[in-house]
Amino acid sequence: MRESEIIEFIKERISAHKQHLGIGDDCCVWQANGQQCLSSDAIIADVHFKKDDEPRLIGRKAAAAALSDLAAMGANAVGASLVYQCAEGWAHQEIIQGCIDELERHQCPLLGGDTVASATLGLSVTVWGEHGPAQRFVLRENGKIADVLIVTGSLGGSLKSGRHLKPEPRLMESQWLAQQDSVHAMMDLSDGLAADVPRMADASGCGSLILGNNVPIHEDVTQIGERLQAALCDGEDFELLCAVDAASWPQLKTEWPFQIPLTMIGMLNEEKGQHLLEDEFGKIRPLPKGFEH
Amino acid sequence: MRESEIIEFIKERISAHKQHLGIGDDCCVWQANGQQCLSSDAIIADVHFKKDDEPRLIGRKAAAAALSDLAAMGANAVGASLVYQCAEGWAHQEIIQGCIDELERHQCPLLGGDTVASATLGLSVTVWGEHGPAQRFVLRENGKIADVLIVTGSLGGSLKSGRHLKPEPRLMESQWLAQQDSVHAMMDLSDGLAADVPRMADASGCGSLILGNNVPIHEDVTQIGERLQAALCDGEDFELLCAVDAASWPQLKTEWPFQIPLTMIGMLNEEKGQHLLEDEFGKIRPLPKGFEH
Repeated sequence: MRESEIIEFIKERISAHKQHLGIGDDCCVWQANGQQCLSSDAIIADVHFKKDDEPRLIGRKAAAAALSDLAAMGANAVGASLVYQCAEGWAHQEIIQGCIDELERHQCPLLGGDTVASATLGLSVTVWGEHGPAQRFVLRENGKIADVLIVTGSLGGSLKSGRHLKPEPRLMESQWLAQQDSVHAMMDLSDGLAADVPRMADASGCGSLILGNNVPIHEDVTQIGERLQAALCDGEDFELLCAVDAASWPQLKTEWPFQIPLTMIGMLNEEKGQHLLEDEFGKIRPLPKGFEH
Repeated sequence: MRESEIIEFIKERISAHKQHLGIGDDCCVWQANGQQCLSSDAIIADVHFKKDDEPRLIGRKAAAAALSDLAAMGANAVGASLVYQCAEGWAHQEIIQGCIDELERHQCPLLGGDTVASATLGLSVTVWGEHGPAQRFVLRENGKIADVLIVTGSLGGSLKSGRHLKPEPRLMESQWLAQQDSVHAMMDLSDGLAADVPRMADASGCGSLILGNNVPIHEDVTQIGERLQAALCDGEDFELLCAVDAASWPQLKTEWPFQIPLTMIGMLNEEKGQHLLEDEFGKIRPLPKGFEH
C-alpha cells in the first residue's frame, strides 16, 4: 500500500464532524472551550507489540494508551491525530481500523495526522481534550500528606496474558472521580504501582507506603509466589491511581457507581522521597523497582 | 542513552511556562483562546534524512516542517509535543536540541511528548496554534475562480543542496497574509507546485494553470535544461502558496513588507479537475506529476 492509498483509506473511514475541520487541510481545526490538555503516545513494533499480534489490537492499543492519558486528567476527549509509520509486511488497513474504532468508541474523532514510510512499523497517537463536568483537570502533583492511595480495577499479568493489547481507558470513571472534591491527585498506571506511586508521591512532595496485602491482583497473574511482584511491577495496566482525602474514602467507596473495583492500596506521608512497601508478611521494606519500557 | 535519561535531558533544556503545564504530568495543559488548529508531522531515518546529516539539522527539520503547517493556516504557535523514537547510534542530545531550538526560535514551547525505543530513528512533532491578529485561519479550500496564485520565496533544489534540512517556516509572512482580505486560500509547499497547486485547486473546486516562466527558481537548482521541472517537482520548499483576488494583487505586491520575493505564478479557473502548465516555450500542457515522499 502506498502512503497516498493509506491516507485515502483513512479519509473514507472517518466521519465528518460539524464542529471540526478534519483531514484534508494543513491543520485540523476545533472550537476550544477553555483549558485544553494534550498527550502523545507511541507504540513501536518489537517493543510494544509483536509481528503475530492481532492487527486490530495493535491499532486499538495505540489509541487506548493515548486515551488513558486523557482519563488520567479527568478530561473529555476532543480529537486525535495519528502518525502512521508504514513498514512493509503489516496489515495496514486492519491496524488503522482498530485505532479508529477505539477512538470512536470513546467519542474521539480522528482529525489529522501524517503517514510516512519507515523500516519499523509505529503508531504515534496524539489526543487532546478539555474539562468534563468537573470543570477541572486532576494533576498528579496535588496529593496531600495522609491522603490514601486508591486504584481502579486489578493489576498485573498484562504483558504475559496479552491483556496489554486491549487496555480499557477509564474515561467514564475518571470523570466521576474528577467530580469528587476529595480526589486530590490522579494519574494512569502504565509502568506498574512500584514505578507510578513514587512518581505521584514525588510530584506531590510526599513519601509513600503501599500496603501489599491490599493490592488487587489481576486473575491474569498466574505465577505462584510472585503474585504481588507481578501486580506491582508488570505495568501496562492502564488503571487509575488517585490520592484521596483519607476521611472521605469510606463515602467515596460507598458511592462508587462502577462495576470495576475501587481499592485503597496505600497512603502518602511526610517522608518525602521515601517509598516503602508493607509486604505480604507485614514487613516494611523499600519498594522494588518498577518496569521501564 | 536510556529513555529516562533522554526525558531528563529534555526537561532540563526547556523553560517553564507560566501559562502552561508542561512535561511531567499525564498531559500538558494550556489556556485556549478560541479556535485551535493542530498538525502532526514525522520525519524518519533513511526517508527524510540520512545517517551523515548534521544531527542538529535533523531536529531542526522535524520542528520546522511541523511549524510550516501552522504557517499554512496563518496561525500563531501555542505549543508542541515531540515523540522521539531513539534508535542506537545517533547523537540524541544534539538532535533533540536542534528540535527545541527551532521551536523556541518561533516562540513555540515544547510541552509534552513521548520517548520510545525503536530500530529506526524518528521524530514526530505535533504543533498547535490559534488565531493571530487576523482572527481567522486561512484554509486551502476557499480559492475562487480567477484568483491569482502566488508563492513566497523561490523553489527547487532543496533535496540535492541539503536546504531541505533547514526550512524556514513562514510564520511571520503568513500572519501578514492572513490579515489581507484579498488572500482567499493558503497552504505550505511540501511536495512541489506540481502536486500542491492541484491540491489547492481541487479543494477549492477549481482548475489551475501554472505560468512556467513566472515560477521563481531557487539558486540551488543547478541542472541545466530541467530547471522548471526542479522548481515544480523537487518539493520540500516549505514556502507558502496563496490564492488571491486578482484585482488586489498589485496592491498586495506593493505593500508586501518582507525581504523574500512574492511572485504570481498562475491562476485558478473554472475548469474543475484540469491542471495545466504553460511551459517555457509558451506551450500549454498537462502538469507533470509532483513529488511523493
